[in-house]
Amino acid sequence: MDTRSIGMFDSGVGGLTVLKEVIEECAGEKVIYLGDTKSFPYGNKTKESIIQLCKNAIDFLIKKDVKAIIIACGTATSQALEEMQKCYNIPIIGIIDSTVEYIENKGYKNIGVMATRGTIRSNGWKNKIDKKIKNANVINKECPLLAPMAEEGWTENEIAKLVVAEYLKGLKNIQCLILGCTHYPLFKEVIEEQIGDSVDVINTGEILAKSLNKILKEKNITNNKQTTKEYEIYLTDMETNFINVASKLLKDDSIGDRIKLAEY
Amino acid sequence: MDTRSIGMFDSGVGGLTVLKEVIEECAGEKVIYLGDTKSFPYGNKTKESIIQLCKNAIDFLIKKDVKAIIIACGTATSQALEEMQKCYNIPIIGIIDSTVEYIENKGYKNIGVMATRGTIRSNGWKNKIDKKIKNANVINKECPLLAPMAEEGWTENEIAKLVVAEYLKGLKNIQCLILGCTHYPLFKEVIEEQIGDSVDVINTGEILAKSLNKILKEKNITNNKQTTKEYEIYLTDMETNFINVASKLLKDDSIGDRIKLAEY
Repeated sequence: MDTRSIGMFDSGVGGLTVLKEVIEECAGEKVIYLGDTKSFPYGNKTKESIIQLCKNAIDFLIKKDVKAIIIACGTATSQALEEMQKCYNIPIIGIIDSTVEYIENKGYKNIGVMATRGTIRSNGWKNKIDKKIKNANVINKECPLLAPMAEEGWTENEIAKLVVAEYLKGLKNIQCLILGCTHYPLFKEVIEEQIGDSVDVINTGEILAKSLNKILKEKNITNNKQTTKEYEIYLTDMETNFINVASKLLKDDSIGDRIKLAEY
Repeated sequence: MDTRSIGMFDSGVGGLTVLKEVIEECAGEKVIYLGDTKSFPYGNKTKESIIQLCKNAIDFLIKKDVKAIIIACGTATSQALEEMQKCYNIPIIGIIDSTVEYIENKGYKNIGVMATRGTIRSNGWKNKIDKKIKNANVINKECPLLAPMAEEGWTENEIAKLVVAEYLKGLKNIQCLILGCTHYPLFKEVIEEQIGDSVDVINTGEILAKSLNKILKEKNITNNKQTTKEYEIYLTDMETNFINVASKLLKDDSIGDRIKLAEY
């Protein structure tokens, strides 16, 4: 048994979709979530900038004595995960590997990826898919407006529907669609409505949470002490809209009490 | 005569609407433009973060030996202009004062302001208007999606029209509408189409350029040596979309040659 927390970070509210899945799936675990809101959005930054931001975030979480770190951000996973795994001894998990494994098991070959500009241009998803899955056909789509819209809380209105329709235009003849940015599960209903039942729309947080649970058990570092869902949130820049979206997503009215300023 | 350049900065492509007006209005001046794309968007950052980013940008421009600095960003003007004017000896001009003076001269009392969350919450526009104009009635509207949409180049499509319509809903019975973020003149046509002829839609860059021209003449620091429109662009993070938007806005196909990386 290991009572230390699980650390998790993202550039904003997006990673909360992963937090939600992890606290539901990994019963007993405490999670410390860092939202690097000061640097939001990561999506259009260079690889070098993102590596530095990840180091800062991981150093902060390590000081909080976490036992594992989840990079709950598609951009940071695709641009910096390997570098981070080289720099640190602690287990660091991104949102890509477990999803690619899921796709491999399902036997999908025609794969759509919606993600930020940075993630798409890094080829993070495509490279991992090509390595694991023979004859995969990957269609990438940059969706730079979705993350800011999620931060705004516009995930189900007419504008959300129109923006999603615009982005789905190029994604034809696919078996599954990876929501390659952790903000995007907030648009899952709108996307599923438009793309239809034949496409498996993948929430990477859901897959990651299952995989994390397995890893914790294998390494024998689960925490069985906690009985209730427990988490703390740190932000690098206080953002009232973060609280609104987080409170809605996590169905937690007193979430404001769990949020502190992260200074580093 | 003073052959030094004019320095100008913004968090992204927004300030280019000001650059465009300044190179048209201030014939003979050379402009050095800094786009702090690494930190885009400024709009939802705290005052403390913005002050630090402004100091970094101004230090960079001062090293380039500029004779005056324009803060071509609504958020930075409203959050940091006064602080910057205290810290530095060089003339520093924001986008608020000249526009408020224009409104005063026109005799407008019912004033709409569209701006980023940071600008609206700082009350930068409202405070300045209330100080200058008696019995002014200011209606503020936070528009956090417009700047990212402008960065994306979505300024005239169906989505732009719908988002603008959403933001204009609360702006009734006004005589003028301040485009309080330098990105917003990119939506000027769509806004004017929806709000009608009775409202004076104000491009702050246009007003600022006229005011700058006057200041340069008064201080006797104009540059008559240059005959063609001349400018250089520095970015803190290379962003290919910046080049697309800039090239379209400034009608300059070879703009890529003028762009360099700013390292600081």
